[in-house]
Amino acid sequence: MRFLTLEDGQLGVLIGERVVDLPAAAEALGAVPSVLTFGELVKSGDDQAEEAWELGLRASDAGIATRLFEEVHARAPIPRPGRNIMCVGKNYREHAKEIAATAIGGSGVPERPIFFTKATTAVIGCGDPIPSHSELTSKLDYEAEVAIVIGREARNLSPETAMDHVFGYTAINDVTARDLQAAHVQWFLGKSLDGAAPMGPTVVHRSAMPEPERIRVRCWVNGDLRQDGNLGQLIFDIPTLLVTLSRGMTLLPGDIIATGTPKGVGAGFEPPRFLVPGDEVAIEVTGAGRLVNRVS
Amino acid sequence: MRFLTLEDGQLGVLIGERVVDLPAAAEALGAVPSVLTFGELVKSGDDQAEEAWELGLRASDAGIATRLFEEVHARAPIPRPGRNIMCVGKNYREHAKEIAATAIGGSGVPERPIFFTKATTAVIGCGDPIPSHSELTSKLDYEAEVAIVIGREARNLSPETAMDHVFGYTAINDVTARDLQAAHVQWFLGKSLDGAAPMGPTVVHRSAMPEPERIRVRCWVNGDLRQDGNLGQLIFDIPTLLVTLSRGMTLLPGDIIATGTPKGVGAGFEPPRFLVPGDEVAIEVTGAGRLVNRVS
Repeated sequence: MRFLTLEDGQLGVLIGERVVDLPAAAEALGAVPSVLTFGELVKSGDDQAEEAWELGLRASDAGIATRLFEEVHARAPIPRPGRNIMCVGKNYREHAKEIAATAIGGSGVPERPIFFTKATTAVIGCGDPIPSHSELTSKLDYEAEVAIVIGREARNLSPETAMDHVFGYTAINDVTARDLQAAHVQWFLGKSLDGAAPMGPTVVHRSAMPEPERIRVRCWVNGDLRQDGNLGQLIFDIPTLLVTLSRGMTLLPGDIIATGTPKGVGAGFEPPRFLVPGDEVAIEVTGAGRLVNRVS
Repeated sequence: MRFLTLEDGQLGVLIGERVVDLPAAAEALGAVPSVLTFGELVKSGDDQAEEAWELGLRASDAGIATRLFEEVHARAPIPRPGRNIMCVGKNYREHAKEIAATAIGGSGVPERPIFFTKATTAVIGCGDPIPSHSELTSKLDYEAEVAIVIGREARNLSPETAMDHVFGYTAINDVTARDLQAAHVQWFLGKSLDGAAPMGPTVVHRSAMPEPERIRVRCWVNGDLRQDGNLGQLIFDIPTLLVTLSRGMTLLPGDIIATGTPKGVGAGFEPPRFLVPGDEVAIEVTGAGRLVNRVS
């Protein structure tokens, strides 16, 4: 089951190569849609997801409210999240090492997960431009990541049941102004410039995802493969992240957690390879499609 | 002009020692209230604030929908903010020094503002208990702060006009688990436990506030004065914070920015004086009333 947010903010269902506009399909089929947006779907639970998916299949079979995925300009799955995106720093060994050698510093591989957040206003969709903010930063960098979307409120989770609270998976680019990240000590500002959180294009329900080792994240800059990792390489796996975050802090449906970036960010090259206007960053997360954004 | 959020989430106006339930007053007076909650008021602008205030005055004079402030259990002014609370670290010199001597470390007085965030789920109101989370932390600390509430969307502000985007001022307790703050490197998690952001009880409109030197923030623990500072002591004053934050990052109406804590936090004492169940923390910000919470 794969879902997305259409140009008008409504819920879309991706069936093979075709996207069904779910509210339009429901109307045409005389069905009463229980949810109209992806944000509502996440909050309403797995049964609603199944129902939306079934409706999408019927519409797709009948050719109703259906068009090709490549014709859709998907917005971020949750265009304006209800709170900041939670992110994990240095969650792949080789990336922790490459970043330790930069001005961000740190002592290499962390002993506990490092959590920070990105502002909601940073979120953009597939195809939207990433502003270069060249008047503010000369070290704009990409970080391809697997993000999870929380589906059920959670507090004090156990490793055994943590994954039941995940709705699904998507791709995020944790765009970072390395100079601001270093200068302001805490990372929030350097991670939160407008447009610094491209996300999508689709969210894959957890039931459709393989084991962690086969959930891959790759990143190309101008067609050049820069990052290639999988969730089997995480220092802190997703259950551990959820257990740690939810210990004393309530997680909410619709929360977005970016799980860390593998090695290969611009800052890790010698000399560094930061983003400049015109660069195209493409990110693929297994099943979630191709998230492409150009720096403007 | 002082506003608050009543037990049922509706907008209250504080006139002297009396609180007017604004939606109830509007109904009784045959007026059409343009806003029902404080969150809506902030987004609707200064004219609506004036209108709400005038209506409050009329109701108070007539004794309609009015009761004593001390009988009100004010919720946080914005009980569930639209995104994380933005906070400033080490923004008073003497506090920067006291914290540099702890496990949080750092090099003393920062050269640029340090920004981090607190989760929305941490927000509680005046009188609500602060959970001790004693299974997670043995170093729960208080930080009394002046918080500002943004009234108008803002980007790339200039120092001259930045203050026009502030709706008003309130008090916040940036409750911090020092051990989690240090262990997780970035501060988000140690600052975001449930109940770690008491706020209120009222928001004072900026038009009713004096110059920064006279905006005082004090904190008592069990009646013992621990912190006593004023906004004239900030390393980075409020216009500077707003200019820096809004440089490339859009600020939204309803955003909450905590401006830093003066010296006197528990971690700064030798030996440290962390919070334990039963402790009462009281915070006063000039004009905003007394924010009292007990650790449970």
